[in-house]
Amino acid sequence: MLVYGKNVAKEILKSDDKIEKIIIQEDFDDDSVLSLIEKRKIKPILMSKKDFSRFDKYFSQGIIMYIKDFEYVDLDTFIDEENAKVVILDHLEDPHNLGAIIRTCEAAGISGVIIPKDRSVSVNSTVMKTSAGALENVKIAMVTNLNQTIKKLKDEGFWIVGTDMENSTDYRDIDYSGKIALIIGNEGSGMSESVKKSCDFIARIPMYGKINSLNASVAAGIMIYEVIRSNK
Amino acid sequence: MLVYGKNVAKEILKSDDKIEKIIIQEDFDDDSVLSLIEKRKIKPILMSKKDFSRFDKYFSQGIIMYIKDFEYVDLDTFIDEENAKVVILDHLEDPHNLGAIIRTCEAAGISGVIIPKDRSVSVNSTVMKTSAGALENVKIAMVTNLNQTIKKLKDEGFWIVGTDMENSTDYRDIDYSGKIALIIGNEGSGMSESVKKSCDFIARIPMYGKINSLNASVAAGIMIYEVIRSNK
Repeated sequence: MLVYGKNVAKEILKSDDKIEKIIIQEDFDDDSVLSLIEKRKIKPILMSKKDFSRFDKYFSQGIIMYIKDFEYVDLDTFIDEENAKVVILDHLEDPHNLGAIIRTCEAAGISGVIIPKDRSVSVNSTVMKTSAGALENVKIAMVTNLNQTIKKLKDEGFWIVGTDMENSTDYRDIDYSGKIALIIGNEGSGMSESVKKSCDFIARIPMYGKINSLNASVAAGIMIYEVIRSNK
Repeated sequence: MLVYGKNVAKEILKSDDKIEKIIIQEDFDDDSVLSLIEKRKIKPILMSKKDFSRFDKYFSQGIIMYIKDFEYVDLDTFIDEENAKVVILDHLEDPHNLGAIIRTCEAAGISGVIIPKDRSVSVNSTVMKTSAGALENVKIAMVTNLNQTIKKLKDEGFWIVGTDMENSTDYRDIDYSGKIALIIGNEGSGMSESVKKSCDFIARIPMYGKINSLNASVAAGIMIYEVIRSNK
């Protein structure tokens, strides 16, 4: 997988992850990054400004690295945790949203994130860059069937909390103690119908304007911090 | 000002705002947008796919409009409100963050937003698109000197709440009743030193990970909903 940008480069250079290749623009002069590269004893490939321009669309900040693909974990690695709080992303589309949500999950100490295999954004280089290094510390499981996964979580004692405006409860009035799985729906269409039906609670963030739409990662952030509010 | 994208086009077409010009790609076929254009009795300029491609970088979704520039309001239009809650953006840089924060302010019913004139992102077409129409319903004042503005707000009975990790109070432990001005700092460097000094309280969102950095618009969203939490 190709990753780009200084922040993600720094995080990977500091980690134990295998780096296959580092390409930097000839005039790259960020000393903190260069000393990290030196420490790892990797010889970066220098590229002329002209040749490097092919990466401009990635906002690469003069550095590109090739690393092994992101490794998803098995669901069982995090759902046994006491009072586990997990976040299920029900067919999110925008990699920037996924990256921002992963950052929030890392900061909030969320046990793990679940994403479906099909019709969903997965962990790509945009996600890696937007997550600003948080990806390294967040467990993500990719599942083939969200409904079966939710059934499994229920069997394991999880309460399933969805997010929607209709038939919902003010998000401040829900008890988030014990094992909680919070579901964040698609940016445009929200939660899938079948997923919605399996929720024990549906939380609503109250809105007082005319347009009343929150950015998906902002809404997720408000909900995630509410879920951990009384537990941490 | 040039604006682009279906959502913002719809909001502007529904409003009373003067539209100077509408350009659509020849194969544009969104009926809801087309019928709104017809209602406004504006003849859109049809452009071939090839010519329209110059707008591709804007993710224009086949529609571009020229409207009059965004109109900022005077500070006095919203600070007299009883228990006014205002948001001050201390030199934010990223238009996507500004757009997302404006959406949150609209949904949360924030009285007004204050941005500095210099070294700050202002309301441009990216902000307009990211704000998904919310811009129409949010009062934004642009001021020349943030420190003087904060002094004025204090004279008007506002409590000034900053956001930072150091010398700070858990954001859940602050009393947000009365007039509140919440300050959101720059994405990289946080609040300016002089602004920090003028805060009555500094709020900290607790973090439990290793990287511990929230996206600026996510942090703003969590704080804004905390400020209105016990008031709405």
